Order: sequence, then structure tokens, then C-alpha cells
Amino acid sequence: MKKRIVIALGGNALGSNLTEQMEAVKNTSKAIADLLEEGHEVVVSHGNGPQVGMINLAMSEYAKNNPGQPEMPLSVCVAMSQAYIGYDLQNALREELLSRGIDKPVATLVTQVVVDPADEAFKNPTKPIGAFMTKEEADALIAKGEQVKEDAGRGYRRVVASPRPKEIVEIETVKELLDAGQVVIAGGGGGIPVIREGKGLKGVGAVIDKDFASCVLAQNIDADAFIVLTAVEKAAINWGKENEEWLGEITTEQARQYMGEGHFAPGSMLPKVEAATLFAESKEGRTALITLLEKAKDGIAGKTGTAIRK
Amino acid sequence: MKKRIVIALGGNALGSNLTEQMEAVKNTSKAIADLLEEGHEVVVSHGNGPQVGMINLAMSEYAKNNPGQPEMPLSVCVAMSQAYIGYDLQNALREELLSRGIDKPVATLVTQVVVDPADEAFKNPTKPIGAFMTKEEADALIAKGEQVKEDAGRGYRRVVASPRPKEIVEIETVKELLDAGQVVIAGGGGGIPVIREGKGLKGVGAVIDKDFASCVLAQNIDADAFIVLTAVEKAAINWGKENEEWLGEITTEQARQYMGEGHFAPGSMLPKVEAATLFAESKEGRTALITLLEKAKDGIAGKTGTAIRK
Repeated sequence: MKKRIVIALGGNALGSNLTEQMEAVKNTSKAIADLLEEGHEVVVSHGNGPQVGMINLAMSEYAKNNPGQPEMPLSVCVAMSQAYIGYDLQNALREELLSRGIDKPVATLVTQVVVDPADEAFKNPTKPIGAFMTKEEADALIAKGEQVKEDAGRGYRRVVASPRPKEIVEIETVKELLDAGQVVIAGGGGGIPVIREGKGLKGVGAVIDKDFASCVLAQNIDADAFIVLTAVEKAAINWGKENEEWLGEITTEQARQYMGEGHFAPGSMLPKVEAATLFAESKEGRTALITLLEKAKDGIAGKTGTAIRK
Repeated sequence: MKKRIVIALGGNALGSNLTEQMEAVKNTSKAIADLLEEGHEVVVSHGNGPQVGMINLAMSEYAKNNPGQPEMPLSVCVAMSQAYIGYDLQNALREELLSRGIDKPVATLVTQVVVDPADEAFKNPTKPIGAFMTKEEADALIAKGEQVKEDAGRGYRRVVASPRPKEIVEIETVKELLDAGQVVIAGGGGGIPVIREGKGLKGVGAVIDKDFASCVLAQNIDADAFIVLTAVEKAAINWGKENEEWLGEITTEQARQYMGEGHFAPGSMLPKVEAATLFAESKEGRTALITLLEKAKDGIAGKTGTAIRK
């Protein structure tokens, strides 16, 4: 049965620099093509941690060394990372599809995600961004209104908020292309974080968790399934302990219970389970799947992975 | 009468750095919104000279200062410039449209343009790219297979080819969105130059003239009009001379004749007239217009600009 699927790629699906990326996207494309070959509609989203870090560092150095060049806001760096990744990913996917006799357009969309300026996360930024700095550099940045934290004796780093995504700005474009049978790469890096200002949108210095952003994207396009890729085939409770138990099909209630009991690592499996659960809770009949990249097809067929349903 | 239009923005529509860009796109958006308000379908393309230059310099410096970081190919820099510009441009346009009560999705597409590896331009690269280098740096680059030229005593610079665009890879996506009434930003910077290799596409170190790329885009979406924006309201023959004559409506034959007589400056008005003429020649009923940004609407209404028709 044809499903509408959002697949959120993790870091290892893309590698950490361009050489690695050009290799990694080939393998990643096979798993995505597997889903498309089954007749499913697919939107691909992805992270951008190492990529936006690299772009941000390069642009900061450039601005520092070229007086008169404005600082590149983090939001613009996220936009650039979407094209940097999307260009390689769409080509690898296009080629993999053609090699299977499937001629489908694949498009990368610059994607913005609206966040709430009143989000609690803005009061306590926690995500370190960019290079280590001296005290003097840190003070100069603080004077510009940025937040900076001392990082375990290694120097100072800028920290930004990770607010919750509310809405995908380009959602009508994603829907239109999906309806036309095209493959869409969207929401890269959790999307460019923007806030509403009057009739406009304004970039903010923040990063959005890509699994949460993909969850909103999946809801907004009325997806049947949301696949959160990770480094393990299934999530587990009592992980690493004697009574460790790999999770197959679970309800959203069970997922909430396990989260409450502290079974999942914060910053790692926890946000994935939380994003997956939010999607499954959002509407009857929606399935969230947590599994390995190469198990995506089997997971959608109900053969493996941790599947969460209402 | 509703027309399908490709509008190719020139450099001054975007400014030369981010601060200028954020200001320039507001004005640019007014002219584009004027066309949309009249009910026309619009694809926006644009140049990326200063932007891709800046990105390329920043990335080269970064790779130089961080051993192990791969060089960033020019094709990837073009991709990044498309998002860097598209993000600002789509937001300014979206805001301008909303302020006029028009709620239309605006999308930026990562766009690739196929070139012919046998293009004569590859034999004699002429477009300088990136920073000036010492003789030693130049020799190192030449050893890697790049072309380098001495630039008027100021040092050495990498030069790349400017091959003719053959085909827009993402054309089906552009068409789908236009048909759905959406506004599309595509073909930024002349597109990411790629060649076909088997079933795949491979980026090449080249730059594509944005007016020629936009001309191909306009033909491929079966546009009615192609607007090449420039710094003058009309093209002229005998420019700057006593018998100077501003051109209104001319035929493709006249355009060819004037080009042959050397009336237009190479690297400036000549490629614009040539791209415009190619579009007008490609099919009966197609109009190519050369004019100022703020005259685009009047030009489409037949009130000003140099209009070229078969």
C-alpha cells in the first residue's frame, strides 16, 4: 500500500566533510530508493551539525579577515548548508533511481521553520556553535548581544537556543511536489529558524532539532509514516543492562511511560523517541518508526524497527 | 493577459554583500510583485558574481587553514550561493506580496544546468575566480589540473570556463510549481554547472552566464516573455555617439544585424542582447525584453524597454 513518508536522516547518512558526504549519499540513496521503488511518496529531511559548523567557521573567519564584510548570521549558514547537502543528496538519489529505471524528479527546497520568540529555549541557550574563543573575543561577542559560555576549560564558545519548530514555511511547495510524484529534500538541518515579524519572517540565531522539525513537516503534509533513522535497529529499554529489551511495536502510552522512566539517553535516543511519539499521537493511523537506514524498507513493511502508534 | 515570464536579475538587484543584499531585495521584490499583481506567472533567476566569489574565497581559506578539510569545488559554492541569495529574496518577495494582499508560496530551488564537456569554452577558460595568488600557489593549483592566468601584474588567479547551458535539470519541478500558481526562484548564478556521466551528473569547475541559463530556462518552461534586467531602460545602437539611437521594438533580424555591427559591449550588453535574441528566435510569439528592474511591468505592458520579437 502506497504511503506518504518523511524520512529523517541522521549524521552518519551524510558524513562529516565533503569527501565523506559524496561517498555516504550513495549508500543513503539506496535506502531511500528502496522506499520509492515500493511506490511510496518520500520527503527526505536531514541533519546538518558538522556541515553548518564548518560553514559558520569558514564564514566567521572570512568576516574577521576582511574588514567591511558583515558577519554571516547562523540562519544564512543553515540555508547554505541545505544547498551544500541537498545538491549531493539529490544527485546521488536521482542516479540511484535512474539505475533502477525510475525517472523521478528530485528537488531540494530552501526550507524555513517558524519558531516562537517566547520559546523558553531562548532564555537558556545550550547549543554550542562555532570555534573556541579567548575571553576577549567572547566579551566582544557578548557586547553584540550574543550568548557565550565557558566550555570545560577549553575556552569560550557561542551558545544558541534550540527552540521547538512550529510550522514549515514552504509546506505548500512540498505538498505540491509530492502530489505530482516528485521526491523532495526539505527541512535540512531542522530548517532555517525564523520568527514572524509583521508580514515578514526574520532569521534567528538558533538551531532546530531536525527530528522535531521533521515531525512537524510529517504532520503538516499528512504523512502516514515518519522514519527517524538512528545507529541502532530498534530502541531499547534498560539499555545495556541485564534486562535490556529491544522494542518492536509499542503504543504512544508505552513510549511516554518509558520516556518518563528515563530509559532513553537525553540528546541522543530521547529526542528521537519524543519526536516519533509526537507524530504518532498527532492522528490515528500514523506510524513513527525508529530504525537503521538500511532497515527503513523492512521497517515500513512491519518487519523490524521500533514502531510507535496511537 | 496572463503571461508566463522569466525575469533575470542583474547584479545591482542583489548588492555585493549580505547587508546590501538584505536592503536590495526589498526594492527588487517590488518590481517582481508588480508582475505577479498583474496576474503573470513568474520565475526569478539571478546572477551570483560577488556572492559565489565571497563563498569560494571563504571556503578556500578554510580548507587551507584546516588540514584534512577537502577543497570546496566551485559547483558546491554555486549551490551554496543559490540558498544564500534565495533565502533573502524569497522572504522579501513573500513579504511584499503579503503586504499587497497576495498569499502565494515562493520557493527557492537548488538548480543544476547541464553543459557539454566538449564545449569550446573548456579549451580556453577566461573567467577569473577567487583570490590573487603567488607564483608558488599558482603552480600548486596548476599541478592539480586547474588553469591559472597572470592578471595584469596583480598576481595569478584561477580561471574557469564559461560554457553554454544546454538544459535545466530541475525543469519538471519548476513547471509543476508554476502550474500550481507558485513563484519560483531558480537557476541562480546561471545554475550549478554539471556534465552528464552515465546516469549521473557531475559538477564541473565552470561558471555559466546567468542570462544564457535563464534563456534556456525560459524556453524549457515555454515562457511567453523573458526579461533581461540591466542598468539602462533600453539598449542602444551607436551608443555614446552623436547618432545614438535607443531601441524600442526590434526584430530578431535587426538584433542579429546590430550585434554583427558591434553595437553592444562584449561582457556587458552583448551577451544580454544575444540571450534575448536566442529566446525570441526560439518560437513565434515569444518576447524578449531588455530594460531596468523598475520598468519591468511597463516593459511587459509594451510601454518601454527594448523588445525583441521574431
